[in-house]
Amino acid sequence: MRKFICAKDEWRDPLNTTPNQPTHSSSDDFTKACADIVGTQHVLTDPNDLNRYGVDWTGQYSGTPIAVARPDTTEQVSDLVKLCGVHRIAMVPVSGRTGLCGGGVPISGQPSLMISLERMNRIRAFDTAARTVTVEAGVVLETLHAAALEHELIFPLMFGAKGSCMIGGNLSTNAGGSNVVRYGNTRDLCLGIEAVMPDGTIVTGLQGLRKDNTGYDIKNLLIGAEGTLGIITAAVFKVSPKPAVRATAFVSVQTLSATIDVLNRLQDRTGGAVEAFEYMPKVMVDTICQQIPNVRPPLDTPAETGLLIEVASSRADDAEMLEDGTVALQNRVLEILGELMEEEIVIDAMIAQSEQQRADLWKMRESVLEAITENGPFYLMDISLPLAHVAQFVAAMDAFCTPLGVLPLMVAHLGDGNLHYGLAAAEGHVFVDLPMDQVKAQAFDLLRTLGGSFSAEHGIGQSKLDLMTSLKDPGQLAVMRMIKCAIDPQNLMNPGKMVPTI
Amino acid sequence: MRKFICAKDEWRDPLNTTPNQPTHSSSDDFTKACADIVGTQHVLTDPNDLNRYGVDWTGQYSGTPIAVARPDTTEQVSDLVKLCGVHRIAMVPVSGRTGLCGGGVPISGQPSLMISLERMNRIRAFDTAARTVTVEAGVVLETLHAAALEHELIFPLMFGAKGSCMIGGNLSTNAGGSNVVRYGNTRDLCLGIEAVMPDGTIVTGLQGLRKDNTGYDIKNLLIGAEGTLGIITAAVFKVSPKPAVRATAFVSVQTLSATIDVLNRLQDRTGGAVEAFEYMPKVMVDTICQQIPNVRPPLDTPAETGLLIEVASSRADDAEMLEDGTVALQNRVLEILGELMEEEIVIDAMIAQSEQQRADLWKMRESVLEAITENGPFYLMDISLPLAHVAQFVAAMDAFCTPLGVLPLMVAHLGDGNLHYGLAAAEGHVFVDLPMDQVKAQAFDLLRTLGGSFSAEHGIGQSKLDLMTSLKDPGQLAVMRMIKCAIDPQNLMNPGKMVPTI
Repeated sequence: MRKFICAKDEWRDPLNTTPNQPTHSSSDDFTKACADIVGTQHVLTDPNDLNRYGVDWTGQYSGTPIAVARPDTTEQVSDLVKLCGVHRIAMVPVSGRTGLCGGGVPISGQPSLMISLERMNRIRAFDTAARTVTVEAGVVLETLHAAALEHELIFPLMFGAKGSCMIGGNLSTNAGGSNVVRYGNTRDLCLGIEAVMPDGTIVTGLQGLRKDNTGYDIKNLLIGAEGTLGIITAAVFKVSPKPAVRATAFVSVQTLSATIDVLNRLQDRTGGAVEAFEYMPKVMVDTICQQIPNVRPPLDTPAETGLLIEVASSRADDAEMLEDGTVALQNRVLEILGELMEEEIVIDAMIAQSEQQRADLWKMRESVLEAITENGPFYLMDISLPLAHVAQFVAAMDAFCTPLGVLPLMVAHLGDGNLHYGLAAAEGHVFVDLPMDQVKAQAFDLLRTLGGSFSAEHGIGQSKLDLMTSLKDPGQLAVMRMIKCAIDPQNLMNPGKMVPTI
Repeated sequence: MRKFICAKDEWRDPLNTTPNQPTHSSSDDFTKACADIVGTQHVLTDPNDLNRYGVDWTGQYSGTPIAVARPDTTEQVSDLVKLCGVHRIAMVPVSGRTGLCGGGVPISGQPSLMISLERMNRIRAFDTAARTVTVEAGVVLETLHAAALEHELIFPLMFGAKGSCMIGGNLSTNAGGSNVVRYGNTRDLCLGIEAVMPDGTIVTGLQGLRKDNTGYDIKNLLIGAEGTLGIITAAVFKVSPKPAVRATAFVSVQTLSATIDVLNRLQDRTGGAVEAFEYMPKVMVDTICQQIPNVRPPLDTPAETGLLIEVASSRADDAEMLEDGTVALQNRVLEILGELMEEEIVIDAMIAQSEQQRADLWKMRESVLEAITENGPFYLMDISLPLAHVAQFVAAMDAFCTPLGVLPLMVAHLGDGNLHYGLAAAEGHVFVDLPMDQVKAQAFDLLRTLGGSFSAEHGIGQSKLDLMTSLKDPGQLAVMRMIKCAIDPQNLMNPGKMVPTI
């Protein structure tokens, strides 16, 4: 292992060192050495390739690497990492490259090798009895979904990019999505990882143990670290039984603060079977219906406070077809919603009677980003709040935005207190003229006051480094620096991401 | 924050430094300074007190501290930690002191202050709507159980020491127990912590957020670190709905390897409602019946492969009383077990028809440690295996032990692959004459081969430092050392625990 010293009263912040310079004058030697490890055809140096890999999904962040290396094995990743250490070349690990925060492209002023895990796309093992699956970082999320379904099981991680995002990125950003309310984030689904540390050491923990108290939690340290502490090459995940039946509903609720009663009632009465609890206010549904063809409001009377709710169960009795042709679980959900109507918590509700109706509801939900984009320029915040404070935040922000001509366009994974809070121009206003800095400042002040987070599930990357400095608990930030400094003292592992310089 | 340097090619292992010597000749100055922080009456120096605190629950580990300080606030903990840093006094954080691995007593050769969190026993907040509770480290687990029940909610962490263990220790050892199969370990129940780092910095994250991707996972780094990286002073936990009904059964299964089919069938058919899945082989049940008064085998034909299973549900329909006077959930469980009998997976089963019968089954389970102790001297292993390899391990160990006169006395949280594997003397053999080292070596060889863990839920403390050196993944061990060195460079935070010296 790399050796290092810890002493007090001295400080060289590796996050603040001047850009590393390659020890070799020629980067050709370096790329040749990369080719010796992964093969010439898997070291991309063509400018078109470098430009393609060097720009992130949002198009807002870019940087040109020396090359893109595509290793096929964990040993090759380790050899590349050691090579970069010798040459003092920064490393940018990437897989599906669908991140939203600029975490997957090189920063300027520092020679970088992009290490793409895309070729490490094997499903190494599937234990249907123990209900675990071992996959490599380059497996596309949707591929894992399909592999689980072959065994009548599901891998529940679910969000828009599922067709192109990869497991390595899911882990490195602790991806969330719309099923977190039941199954948790990527972190909660993972039983162990294999990773390459910044000195090339391979750490392994792929046994799929449910209990293991032998030391510090290295797994969770690397999950969500955005490749700044090492490169995750494989992981073992829990898989869950495939639901035998689903009940998908759109519900109009009296107030936003009352939605938590709807969530708790459904959870208690279904044994915690709520899989999605998505907030879709009227303004968002209207925008989708305007911008996206063939989408209609699910309720005759538009819901000011709309919820897309999905409940799912693997129980045979829940899947039972009743005499009247309805399904037991859907009946139960309607029954619960009926109660909530009598209690004047719920105003109106519809439940999907067919797969087509269910698909229509989810199409509406999944069209959000497209609809907001079509609607015009916007600024999007990925934030979270304690469940008890969501309504207060939204009310305060709406009151603040309206007089300024700012239109909040929001959707929320409400069961997790996770708001995707968009800010657009209200009718008759021009986006570029809006006092957006003022609105953001107000939002972040509110988050600070109400104990919220400025990054719920998208991560930090480059886009939120300033917020890390201004909003992150200083104690935690200091500990992060200690850890980054100890594990990556040369600051070669995805530099300029997640951990702000002082 | 403390500053420190990282550089290559040099190494001073803080885990290997000669014992720190107090900078002051007299420890009176130090204890006086402690008293200035927490008050004279809360600094214990009476030899009787020091002996009481200095011996762990097992009686196998002891060490005498300079004093025991009992802070009342997080700020007092921080001040004590800073004071110890200045005086170079080691710190041993303790709460309920029920640990089984010697993690909560001073080591010899190093002047230590024991910091007992027992006075920090407040429940700071209970959010029944968001279903979170914020508690201090000195809260007794059973007290938290009661507090949750007042709101018709449960805090599901459950094990023998519940009446005296405290939250701080539960977190620092990532305590497990018999409900992990449904609710997870302490780690999985925790949404955030407040802690004091080795330099006195207070890190806080008690907002109870369900999603927060703003940086490294400091929470999980401190959970399970046995106080070697900092002192956890408070935490916010998830709480769950109180079950409306339980079905508790004792089941005789054909083979150990077939038990996983029983688990999966029950999980799928009850929507994941299995709360306990405990393995109790015949030899264990027999030993309990011999040693513990008023315990009888639950089945007429003793079960070679016995399972204590509990299923629980918050669903009203599961709690329904049927015409025949039976309860729906219990009927469903019997129905499933009936199927498994027809498939010749299950041999026999009984289901508790009353609270008394349920209590009897749990009394049998909870008498295990007492029964093994009464039975005579034994060596106990707390190990885990991938679910698919449990049967193979047990078969191989039984075959190895029997000819040597060693009697395996085991109970297991089988749903988690967690075996409490006891080794006693078979009839006609004397414990001290048994080749126990040979048996242990065989067990750990098997664990290595089968991908098991040598500490599933009890932790490392002092008792398994040698196993950390010989069995822990070297890569992970090296990363642990980097982290310990970076965060606690003076090695003052519970030294001699968890992280072995080189």
